[in-house]
Amino acid sequence: MKKENIQKSICEAVKAVREKNPMAPSITNTVTVNFVANAQLAVGGSAAMIYLPDEGESMARLGGAFYINMGTLFPVYAETLPRTVKALAGAGTPWVLDPVGIGIGALRKDLLIQFRTCPPSILRGNASEILAVAKLWELMKDDGETGVRGVDSTDEVEAARGAAVAIARYIKGAVAVSGPVDLITDGETVAYSKGGSRFFPMITGAGCSLGGVMAVYASQTSPFIAALTGAAAYNLAGARAEAKVRGPGSFQTQFLDELYLAAAEEIAECPMDLEKA
Amino acid sequence: MKKENIQKSICEAVKAVREKNPMAPSITNTVTVNFVANAQLAVGGSAAMIYLPDEGESMARLGGAFYINMGTLFPVYAETLPRTVKALAGAGTPWVLDPVGIGIGALRKDLLIQFRTCPPSILRGNASEILAVAKLWELMKDDGETGVRGVDSTDEVEAARGAAVAIARYIKGAVAVSGPVDLITDGETVAYSKGGSRFFPMITGAGCSLGGVMAVYASQTSPFIAALTGAAAYNLAGARAEAKVRGPGSFQTQFLDELYLAAAEEIAECPMDLEKA
Amino acid sequence: MKKENIQKSICEAVKAVREKNPMAPSITNTVTVNFVANAQLAVGGSAAMIYLPDEGESMARLGGAFYINMGTLFPVYAETLPRTVKALAGAGTPWVLDPVGIGIGALRKDLLIQFRTCPPSILRGNASEILAVAKLWELMKDDGETGVRGVDSTDEVEAARGAAVAIARYIKGAVAVSGPVDLITDGETVAYSKGGSRFFPMITGAGCSLGGVMAVYASQTSPFIAALTGAAAYNLAGARAEAKVRGPGSFQTQFLDELYLAAAEEIAECPMDLEKA
Repeated sequence: MKKENIQKSICEAVKAVREKNPMAPSITNTVTVNFVANAQLAVGGSAAMIYLPDEGESMARLGGAFYINMGTLFPVYAETLPRTVKALAGAGTPWVLDPVGIGIGALRKDLLIQFRTCPPSILRGNASEILAVAKLWELMKDDGETGVRGVDSTDEVEAARGAAVAIARYIKGAVAVSGPVDLITDGETVAYSKGGSRFFPMITGAGCSLGGVMAVYASQTSPFIAALTGAAAYNLAGARAEAKVRGPGSFQTQFLDELYLAAAEEIAECPMDLEKA
Repeated sequence: MKKENIQKSICEAVKAVREKNPMAPSITNTVTVNFVANAQLAVGGSAAMIYLPDEGESMARLGGAFYINMGTLFPVYAETLPRTVKALAGAGTPWVLDPVGIGIGALRKDLLIQFRTCPPSILRGNASEILAVAKLWELMKDDGETGVRGVDSTDEVEAARGAAVAIARYIKGAVAVSGPVDLITDGETVAYSKGGSRFFPMITGAGCSLGGVMAVYASQTSPFIAALTGAAAYNLAGARAEAKVRGPGSFQTQFLDELYLAAAEEIAECPMDLEKA
Repeated sequence: MKKENIQKSICEAVKAVREKNPMAPSITNTVTVNFVANAQLAVGGSAAMIYLPDEGESMARLGGAFYINMGTLFPVYAETLPRTVKALAGAGTPWVLDPVGIGIGALRKDLLIQFRTCPPSILRGNASEILAVAKLWELMKDDGETGVRGVDSTDEVEAARGAAVAIARYIKGAVAVSGPVDLITDGETVAYSKGGSRFFPMITGAGCSLGGVMAVYASQTSPFIAALTGAAAYNLAGARAEAKVRGPGSFQTQFLDELYLAAAEEIAECPMDLEKA
C-alpha cells in the first residue's frame, strides 16, 4: 500500500465517523470506562458499555464494531465474553481486543485462549502484552525470536514486531503496539506512527481509549486503516495537548479537546513511516 | 401554576440544597458514576453509590431522595433494584428513574415492567426513552399518537409530549424529556426550559448527572419543581461553560464549575415557557 | 521522632516513588477508581484495579503495597477481600484500608470484623469512620471517651484522636484521620498536617485517592511516614490548586497537576505539628 493511499483512507475514515456517528459498544474496565466513552464521542462515534451476556450478544449484532478490554474482569464475564465474541464472529462485526492484565488470574487466561479460535480484527496493547498473546496463542517459536529486549521502551516496541506480524497474519486483521512510537501492522506492511506525549503513560486510559477509538474507526474502514487512524489521531492530539499543559490532570482535558478539534487532513498527515513486514 | 411562583420555588429549592447538603443515594451506571456524584456535590448535595440489595434498602430509607439509572446492569441488580424500589415506596422517598438502554436485554425490560407498579417520582430521559416507557407501561394508544417524529431533535422532544404527560399523570409525579429544549411536565403544566450546550451530547453523563441532580432537588421540593430546577441549572451552567471552552474535555470541567457557581436567582430566571398540558 | 528526621524521611519517600514507579494494586470503589489511579500515577506510582479473588491474591504478593477501599461492594467481594487480605498478611505486604460506608449493609460489617485479625498497615478515614472502626474492633471503652463531639469538623478530628491512637497501637501501623487539619499517628507520635482546600469535600475521591497514594508511599517507607507523606502532598497540592481555580471541576484537574509537580522538599516542608500521643 502506498503512503498516499493510506493517508487518503485515514482521511476518509475520520470524515465517515464524524458524519455517521457510528456506535461501537464496549465491554471495558471500570477504571477508564468514562475516558473510553468520551474519547469515542470526541472523534464522532457513539458509546454503550455492557456487562450482561444477552446484552453483549444483542449489541454485538447491532454495533458497527465492538471494543473488548480485559482490564477489570467480573465473574459474569466468564459468560458474557464468550457469548459476545461468538455473536461478533457470527455477525461478522469487527472488534478490537485489549488484553490488559494478561498473565493475571485464571479467568483472563482462559478467556484469551478461547479468543484464539474467534480472534479480534484488531489486537491493541503494549509490547509485553502483544508478546504474551503471541506466546499464549503459540504463534511464535520459543527460541528467543522475541528475546531481544531493548534498553528503552522504543526498543521494546521493536522487539514485539515479529509477534505483531505473526498475530496480524493469524487473525487476518491488524495489530497495534503502543509505545513512544506506535507500530501498526496488517502482516504485510509495518507502519510506525509518531508523535504522542510523555503524559500518555502518566494518565490512565490512554491505551484503553485508543482501543475504543480504533473500534469506532473499524466500523467504517479496514482493521489496518482503523488502527492507523486511531494511532495517528492520538499522536497528533497528544502532542498538541502536551504543548498546552503543565501536568497530567489538565493533559486529559486538553487531549479530549484536541481529539475533537483535529481535522481529518491533519490526522492523515501525522508523521508515519512504512516498511514491508 | 404561575411563572413567578414556579421561579420562587426553584430559587428556594436551590438554596435549601445548598444549606442542608441533602443525601441522594444512587444506583447508577459505571460509565458516568463519577460525574453524577460530582454534579450532585457541585449543586450542594451529598452522594452515595450502591450495588447490594440490603444497602439499597437501607439507603432508600435514609436518603432524602434516590436516583436509579439503568445504564449498566449487573446480575445482582435483579435483586437490588426491586428491593430498593419497594423500600422507596414503603418509606415514601421520592426517586428519579433514568431508563437508559431501554430495549436492550431481558433484565432491563423485566425491571422496567416491575417499576410500573412502584413508579418513580420523576422519569427522566430523551424523547425515544420516554416514548418507549409509555409504550412498555401501556399508557399510550398504539394508533400513532406518538408517530409524528420530527426531522430534528427539537421536534423529537415535542413528539414525546403526549407520552410525557400521560406518564406524569400515571405516576402522579413529573417527567423530564431532555433535548435541545427540555420539556418538563407534571401532567397539568408543560414547561420548556431553554439554554444548554451543543457539547451536552458530545460528553457522557450530561443526562445521567442531570437525573442525579434532580434527585438531590427532589429531597427538598415537589417532583415537578425538582425536575425544573435541575433542567434550569443545567441549561444555565451549560451555556456558560460552552462560552469558555473549545472542546468537550474542558467543557466537562467548566460545567461543574458553573454548576457550583450559579446563583439561585440566576437558575430561577433561566428562560422557560409554560403551557397547559 | 524529631521533626527534621520525619521531614527527611518524607523527602526520601517522595523521591523513591518517583524513581522506582512502584505498583500499588487496589480493590476500590467504582465512583472514584479513575481518580485513585490517576493520583497514584501523578505521584510516580503504578496502578492496577482488581475484582476477582485469585487476582487479589496474586497481586497481593506482587505489589509493593495494596489499597482496599470499601465504598462500593460487589457480591464477589465476600470472597475477594478475605482471600486478598489473607494473602497480604502472608506476604507481609503493607496495605491501606479505607472503611468507606462503615455502618451500611451486612457484608461491609462482616468484612470489617474479619479485618480485625488481619489488620491493615494504615487505616485512613474521616473522624466518624475512625471512631466507628474503633468501636467495631472493641478498642475503646463505651464510656464516652469519644463522646466529645465538637461543633465543627476540626473538633471532630480531635474527637477521634483517642480512637486513632488506640487503633494505631493495635495494628502496629498508622492511622490517618482526614479533616480540615489531618491527624496522623503511629500510636506514639500524633502529627497534624495542615493546608489542603475547601474544595476537597466538594469533589468525590479526595479521600479515596489519598488512601491510594498512601499505599504507593507505603511500598517504600514505614506506614507512619507513608501516611504523613500522602497527607502532606495532598495538603500542599490542594492549597496550590485552590489558588488557581474558581470551582470544583477545574480543581480536580489542577490538583492532579500540582500533585505531579510538587517537589519532594516542598512536600516535606508542608506545615506539620508534632505531639506525643
